[in-house]
Amino acid sequence: MLDIGHDVLTARQFERSDLTRLAEVAERLEPIARGEKVCRVLEGAVMANLFFEPSTRTRISFGAAFARLGGAVLDTSGLETTSIVKGESLSDTARVISGYADVIVVRHPTPEAAKIIAGAALVPVINGGDGEAEHPTQALTDFYTISKELKARGKPIDGSTIVILGDLRFGRTTHSLITQMSVFDDITFHLVSPEALAMPEAYADIARKRGHTVKVFRTLEEGLAGADVIYATRYQSERFQIDPTVREAAERLRLDAKSFRAHAPEDAVILHPLPRDEVFGELATDIDAMDNLAVFRQTDNGVPIRMALFVTILGVADSFHEMTRTPAWPLRRRPE
Amino acid sequence: MLDIGHDVLTARQFERSDLTRLAEVAERLEPIARGEKVCRVLEGAVMANLFFEPSTRTRISFGAAFARLGGAVLDTSGLETTSIVKGESLSDTARVISGYADVIVVRHPTPEAAKIIAGAALVPVINGGDGEAEHPTQALTDFYTISKELKARGKPIDGSTIVILGDLRFGRTTHSLITQMSVFDDITFHLVSPEALAMPEAYADIARKRGHTVKVFRTLEEGLAGADVIYATRYQSERFQIDPTVREAAERLRLDAKSFRAHAPEDAVILHPLPRDEVFGELATDIDAMDNLAVFRQTDNGVPIRMALFVTILGVADSFHEMTRTPAWPLRRRPE
Amino acid sequence: MLDIGHDVLTARQFERSDLTRLAEVAERLEPIARGEKVCRVLEGAVMANLFFEPSTRTRISFGAAFARLGGAVLDTSGLETTSIVKGESLSDTARVISGYADVIVVRHPTPEAAKIIAGAALVPVINGGDGEAEHPTQALTDFYTISKELKARGKPIDGSTIVILGDLRFGRTTHSLITQMSVFDDITFHLVSPEALAMPEAYADIARKRGHTVKVFRTLEEGLAGADVIYATRYQSERFQIDPTVREAAERLRLDAKSFRAHAPEDAVILHPLPRDEVFGELATDIDAMDNLAVFRQTDNGVPIRMALFVTILGVADSFHEMTRTPAWPLRRRPE
Repeated sequence: MLDIGHDVLTARQFERSDLTRLAEVAERLEPIARGEKVCRVLEGAVMANLFFEPSTRTRISFGAAFARLGGAVLDTSGLETTSIVKGESLSDTARVISGYADVIVVRHPTPEAAKIIAGAALVPVINGGDGEAEHPTQALTDFYTISKELKARGKPIDGSTIVILGDLRFGRTTHSLITQMSVFDDITFHLVSPEALAMPEAYADIARKRGHTVKVFRTLEEGLAGADVIYATRYQSERFQIDPTVREAAERLRLDAKSFRAHAPEDAVILHPLPRDEVFGELATDIDAMDNLAVFRQTDNGVPIRMALFVTILGVADSFHEMTRTPAWPLRRRPE
Repeated sequence: MLDIGHDVLTARQFERSDLTRLAEVAERLEPIARGEKVCRVLEGAVMANLFFEPSTRTRISFGAAFARLGGAVLDTSGLETTSIVKGESLSDTARVISGYADVIVVRHPTPEAAKIIAGAALVPVINGGDGEAEHPTQALTDFYTISKELKARGKPIDGSTIVILGDLRFGRTTHSLITQMSVFDDITFHLVSPEALAMPEAYADIARKRGHTVKVFRTLEEGLAGADVIYATRYQSERFQIDPTVREAAERLRLDAKSFRAHAPEDAVILHPLPRDEVFGELATDIDAMDNLAVFRQTDNGVPIRMALFVTILGVADSFHEMTRTPAWPLRRRPE
Repeated sequence: MLDIGHDVLTARQFERSDLTRLAEVAERLEPIARGEKVCRVLEGAVMANLFFEPSTRTRISFGAAFARLGGAVLDTSGLETTSIVKGESLSDTARVISGYADVIVVRHPTPEAAKIIAGAALVPVINGGDGEAEHPTQALTDFYTISKELKARGKPIDGSTIVILGDLRFGRTTHSLITQMSVFDDITFHLVSPEALAMPEAYADIARKRGHTVKVFRTLEEGLAGADVIYATRYQSERFQIDPTVREAAERLRLDAKSFRAHAPEDAVILHPLPRDEVFGELATDIDAMDNLAVFRQTDNGVPIRMALFVTILGVADSFHEMTRTPAWPLRRRPE
């Protein structure tokens, strides 16, 4: 059970009770995340945003989450060009930075880097993505979004059908998603991809071993049938050579207003971890006007769920509401 | 009329009443901008400083303005290297970031980028410069400086003579300046530049159509005569090939203590958007000791005028003073 | 005597009374530095972290120090790519930034840059390292660490033996260290290095002129004998060609658990300004488990000593404790 002082390193560490609890806390934090309430519970605390590779959105999402709670954020996005090139070990860097901060968020191109850093740091470490391996806060954001979207449609997660669509081989968030959602009961996963970009069996096996149904499809017609959730991903074309066969197969799996209406249930929710590739068009913008598209609600959700992690591991999940007030500025966001 | 929730996209959106109001608000904010008073009205609010091209001074000026009001600043200066290269549209980025922040400042090399971002964002957007097109907060800073400097000399803006000197073709701040100042009455503009770097007629026409007098000169002797304000700019030599003819013409227009004393009225104010080119020397440093040089008062003014924008569009222009107090630290700035 | 409004430019400006006073103030600030107490004395103040070359650790250490006191930090690590390339002078940049902030920290590759910036700025300037020349806050951190470590062992600084080991020619922190520690009485300095990397005579002379004993050694056996403090440094191999002779000599001076136990007194303290070169191994990681190794206590100390500078030059060294409270979050650091 995630508790004060713990690290957040892998999607595998969260059991159902963790997810339920984090979603409850995140929901209570939403008005603060949106600037409708002000909370200064972490005033005086420092978070080090330790980015060894650029990822503006993840960095800013963590930064906003910590700042919304009153904490100070120190960004270290230039790390690859400094101490590291002088031959310093990741452990030394981690130990040093942990003397400056109360919590560390780390993004690193190397698998296991977050684990090494957590081993050397004196403060809790949150994995903000380590190479191919893990991106647990993205998985939490995806879970939280699915949870809220299904709830809004009067459906439980247990028993739902989740379609995972696109590049299931290199899209690491799809691996985390199937892992994370497998803690629930009786899910039917539809894995829809070009054959060359199928999900590695190891991840499908995680779902099967927990008693879920895993079906593999090569067409939208079959794949989208019965979907409660459709999780599309970008083709990671910087990581593999797209040959004409793959490209053709991928093009047949493009999700747009037409293919969605033709094959998906009317109330299916569409997620995508973003960025979507607007050139390739795996998730067309003609869907943007449809309320089914939850991708921006999904990015919005990244802030409260990360806030939920911060208040939990810093030990203020049960007390932050006492330090919440109405903001001095009246501005509210424009309606979407 | 600029109001709560509005975007700040172009110098053309401000009418005389906007400028007068913003100057009043900025003046009340000056003690806070200088650290002589502390104001925490925006405590809990988040500003995203969305910089797609580097511009340290503009970025820091916005950051200081927001931080002086108690808000948190998230810098995204690495943007060009992340999502954008993955094929994401500016609209998607804007919508996503607007889920993290209460206000967005954007700097982008492409004209119209700020407008696209404002169209997709759920929060107000301030244009921090979009390529050749616009830099409205620089124009506001310049207006505010002229307003204060003339007032200190007991002169109104109406009826004044404003000399615009240097590279009037590529120096976009001169275009914004003539546009912005044209909302006042009966200005005489002296446009002084090498012939090849003359101001585009479109901008001179804006002034003429509002009934102002526009005169074109090629010498300092004629150009500086009767000046109340002299606005010098850097030759944007990275944007054009300086041939010997242009260079000679530009050299004859160098403003230094000698040429200023020879041709300008004793109480003329000298502005420059900085950086000045100390190699080329279009505004010599031997003027630095003269009180006529207002260029650093001008950069100082960039903070309170940006604060005035923030309090206006976030809706606290009439209430921030209630949340102002004396700082705990006694340090004051050194006299200049 | 360091006082309100002063600049911090060189290790030579601190006399014994300054160091004693700063250490006292730093010690009172330690609970705040570690997040065990919250202090908001600088709420409303702005610090500009003006970095013309990357140095993440120094930048973050200053940032953490200022943020822990409640102030806002504006980072300007992209400076080398912006105004400077447009031909702007350091003086103009300094004056402009000093209009945005209450204190400036500057890191610059050029000697004397900090002095030039201090000459033009309207607010106090702290030198965060200027090229080969100075790094006074590192020297303060080193002094503070020696002071605390010796005190914990019941020893005074006066009369102690300080071994300086490694690249004494290019390692600027060793130059600052011998300078800084020379304000105490009756120190015995052991300078231990390959012959080609000996400490420049000018620095050894500073110690000799203040009446200290300076001995030069080429072996650990002689060099470590009687040590109270061993200050090791990285071979700055990016600055010189390591020929086989130097490499062999350097390898004989490697400090590891075995050589330490063979030649150094049992309670000797080991410092290193970090990063250590884990490839070259001048300070082996097999020492990490020994309490003698103070290198991480040393980096931790960098925060309270920098806080001590901030509260002193901003004038709140005697009042910050009145604005100190218990944090809302219960998390404490993991034991080392």
